[in-house]
Amino acid sequence: MNQSLRPDKAALVELFRDFIEPQYVINDEETQKPFECDGLSVYCDMPLITVLPKTVEQVCEVMRICYRYQIPVVARGAGTGLCAGAMPNPDGVLLVLSRFKHILDIDPLARSARLQPGVRNLAISEAASPYGLYYGPDPSSQIACSIGGNVAENSGGVHCLKYGLTTHNLLKIEMVTVEGELITIGSEGLDSNGFDLMALITGSEGLLGVITEVTVKLLPSPEKAQVIMAGFDNVQTAGDAVGGVIAKGIIPAGLEMMDSPAIIAAEAFAHAGYPTDAQALLLCELDGSEAEVQEQIAEVEQLFIELGATTTRVSQSEAERALLWKGRKSAFPAVGRISPDYYCMDGTIPRSQLAHVLTEMQKLSEQYGLRVANVFHAGDGNLHPLILFDANVPGELERTEEFGSRILELCVKVGGCITGEHGVGVEKIRQMTIQFNDQELTQFHAIKHAFDPIGTLNPGKGIPVLKRCQEYRTLDRPQHKHDSQPQQGDLA
Amino acid sequence: MNQSLRPDKAALVELFRDFIEPQYVINDEETQKPFECDGLSVYCDMPLITVLPKTVEQVCEVMRICYRYQIPVVARGAGTGLCAGAMPNPDGVLLVLSRFKHILDIDPLARSARLQPGVRNLAISEAASPYGLYYGPDPSSQIACSIGGNVAENSGGVHCLKYGLTTHNLLKIEMVTVEGELITIGSEGLDSNGFDLMALITGSEGLLGVITEVTVKLLPSPEKAQVIMAGFDNVQTAGDAVGGVIAKGIIPAGLEMMDSPAIIAAEAFAHAGYPTDAQALLLCELDGSEAEVQEQIAEVEQLFIELGATTTRVSQSEAERALLWKGRKSAFPAVGRISPDYYCMDGTIPRSQLAHVLTEMQKLSEQYGLRVANVFHAGDGNLHPLILFDANVPGELERTEEFGSRILELCVKVGGCITGEHGVGVEKIRQMTIQFNDQELTQFHAIKHAFDPIGTLNPGKGIPVLKRCQEYRTLDRPQHKHDSQPQQGDLA
Repeated sequence: MNQSLRPDKAALVELFRDFIEPQYVINDEETQKPFECDGLSVYCDMPLITVLPKTVEQVCEVMRICYRYQIPVVARGAGTGLCAGAMPNPDGVLLVLSRFKHILDIDPLARSARLQPGVRNLAISEAASPYGLYYGPDPSSQIACSIGGNVAENSGGVHCLKYGLTTHNLLKIEMVTVEGELITIGSEGLDSNGFDLMALITGSEGLLGVITEVTVKLLPSPEKAQVIMAGFDNVQTAGDAVGGVIAKGIIPAGLEMMDSPAIIAAEAFAHAGYPTDAQALLLCELDGSEAEVQEQIAEVEQLFIELGATTTRVSQSEAERALLWKGRKSAFPAVGRISPDYYCMDGTIPRSQLAHVLTEMQKLSEQYGLRVANVFHAGDGNLHPLILFDANVPGELERTEEFGSRILELCVKVGGCITGEHGVGVEKIRQMTIQFNDQELTQFHAIKHAFDPIGTLNPGKGIPVLKRCQEYRTLDRPQHKHDSQPQQGDLA
Repeated sequence: MNQSLRPDKAALVELFRDFIEPQYVINDEETQKPFECDGLSVYCDMPLITVLPKTVEQVCEVMRICYRYQIPVVARGAGTGLCAGAMPNPDGVLLVLSRFKHILDIDPLARSARLQPGVRNLAISEAASPYGLYYGPDPSSQIACSIGGNVAENSGGVHCLKYGLTTHNLLKIEMVTVEGELITIGSEGLDSNGFDLMALITGSEGLLGVITEVTVKLLPSPEKAQVIMAGFDNVQTAGDAVGGVIAKGIIPAGLEMMDSPAIIAAEAFAHAGYPTDAQALLLCELDGSEAEVQEQIAEVEQLFIELGATTTRVSQSEAERALLWKGRKSAFPAVGRISPDYYCMDGTIPRSQLAHVLTEMQKLSEQYGLRVANVFHAGDGNLHPLILFDANVPGELERTEEFGSRILELCVKVGGCITGEHGVGVEKIRQMTIQFNDQELTQFHAIKHAFDPIGTLNPGKGIPVLKRCQEYRTLDRPQHKHDSQPQQGDLA
């Protein structure tokens, strides 16, 4: 019952084919090739064996076999992730959940949907639409990404400012443990007792179990949505305007910002009518009842003008609203046209630090001699700096990675964190040592051990081993957050 | 370094007095008396020693000493809890956090407040009010209960339907581990990476650590709030009306229900103008902008009438709104006047099961020969049945407890859970074995072990030991939820 008795690859394939149709147990290189990486294609590897079970019982049995022989298991949804969280393990099984694609139930009264993990994000809203409902979180990849992956990475999107991340929109999860047992987390009611493990599982990147069913909350489709676009002649003013909207007590459905390089690239691509001479552009969507939207659009427009907007424009039709968003939504491919390569970062900062971080990032850009375009969820403080580089110029990829690390460290320094919605995976595992101290990482390892005592669930992702930490921290890097004394006011 | 070397009580007192002022290390019975129970005064015990530290460093040192000698530690806030979660351990230290009462910071731009754990719930909203902000969750005990306790029990309140429970209103926690180390959970940004432990800690009833700082989200005070009262001639219709409001896409700020015994008692006490001939009463508060509230009040009133309300009344002033709420808020003491004793239950069910559960509860009431008054957060599906009894009648307390257990089991059976906002503590530890199967409870124990390997944090609360489970489950009780086959529709 230990690894020394582990069957060889051919015997394992036979074991799996005992209960999964043979064509869904894959071990040849060619058929496994499409699974070698996720959306962040710089990190790739080939799995030992790929299995595509169809039932929860089959998942349990795969897990039992892997547990018995201590074989690593990496779960994979649609493979659209951006942190190499689903990168295969060369010594392990890749457990692909794409056959779990059924919507099991839509309950309009409870406003919930019970889903298999392979259901596409957008398919949920499409199925809920006849009831006047939709699913809130909308990652850019929503046409392709699946709900199981959304849970594993705690995905975000434009609408998360108002409606929350994936973690805020879940009711219940069914999960298979490393031992192959099915457990239920959460409930269909508003609360559940016992330890609340829902948020712990959400965003845990396949390190704690394999999700086999997800029940999400649905939201009523708003009666009306309108978008206001505003141009500013510097990023500082635009950053302040973001804070101004929130301080007014208005929570927009989306509040997005682009800087000059992004505006120019997006406009050339989408012809949305963006002011190409602006240094910063805000897109602010408001939704709700007719009366509410009308009132808030007027309030936000006036605020933008007072705070120094050089241009404003309010969508007067659904077509115009779609056009204004088109530029934003195509900003990544648009930037791809003006640079041979780009590296998309993902960090989150307190909203109040927006202008400061953008200014610092500009200094770093000059220091590293690399251009950066910013397209991001400003209302959330979730930045997506795109570093423009040319992988064919020797040393430029390395300089880009270092520039990226500096940006993430800057996020931590101002009280934010190294990811907003893309996850840690393989990509940001080193920066975890800057974000957390040894006590906190030890706590994470204890939690990991509580779910996965043999350490076979997605090994090498998410949480760094402690001995790596000192090495990385002692490089020439800014002070760890815990080293500085916090300032404490005392109002009582 | 183990329990055999443990100092005696007098030596321990001296150890604590080395770094805590002598008057805040208590070991005489008279001074410790006020701490022997929380708000659920049926479960009482005296601690070995009570300490009231003032600084985080003192808390760390108390924890280090208790860890070294394996002494149980029970943390206590304001002591207003309702599940005996803060009941002292006769062999342990009671760690009282009432001296941690400072508001450390209010940040209106980030809309957050940084608080010591002993800050009273209502004091947060009072301090935030000059900025037009307030703190959402509002337990009935909000004038007295403290934020640390709110986090430990994941407290609710009338406004939680729209604004969420405590767990939905937190940004960051600082916590001292059982080993005496300070760790930070969450961040000031919208998201944080690593395992999301915030919800796990929230509601963990002092089993995982001692909370020493809490950063909460603040909400903008609504421009307008109005309440609509509606009487119905049966609970079924009122239950359907609750579902009807939610199905319309309206989320009220509060949606409360009372049944006939509660209406009559509350009206006699508060003179709010409730229709005493109604079988059920709904109070529905709407808040937001002027325009939004006006539109929604009209919509809800029409809906109530269509669904069979026999009377409706809309508050026309702040005074009238306060009066309509006064009856609801004083319902517990009002019921206290019509019965020698009452036992307040707390269970949560899917909203769609409301009418069914109320009907079943009425049958149980007849079966046990005990009256029950219902006052509850109907929108949330969070029930508070008050069982009326007389402790002086032999056997009536025992019958009440059994009736209560049946109600909780009914909640589980329809897909709900055994607590909505009061917690498990000592009171509901047996029912945990009905709610969860052995695999799930084993997972809870593994989590507990990851934080508290020596098991000294609030022992005997929250999570039952496995050997108790079979005993309780094999009594003449309904089937465990996992024994029945779920019905699966397949819409895809």
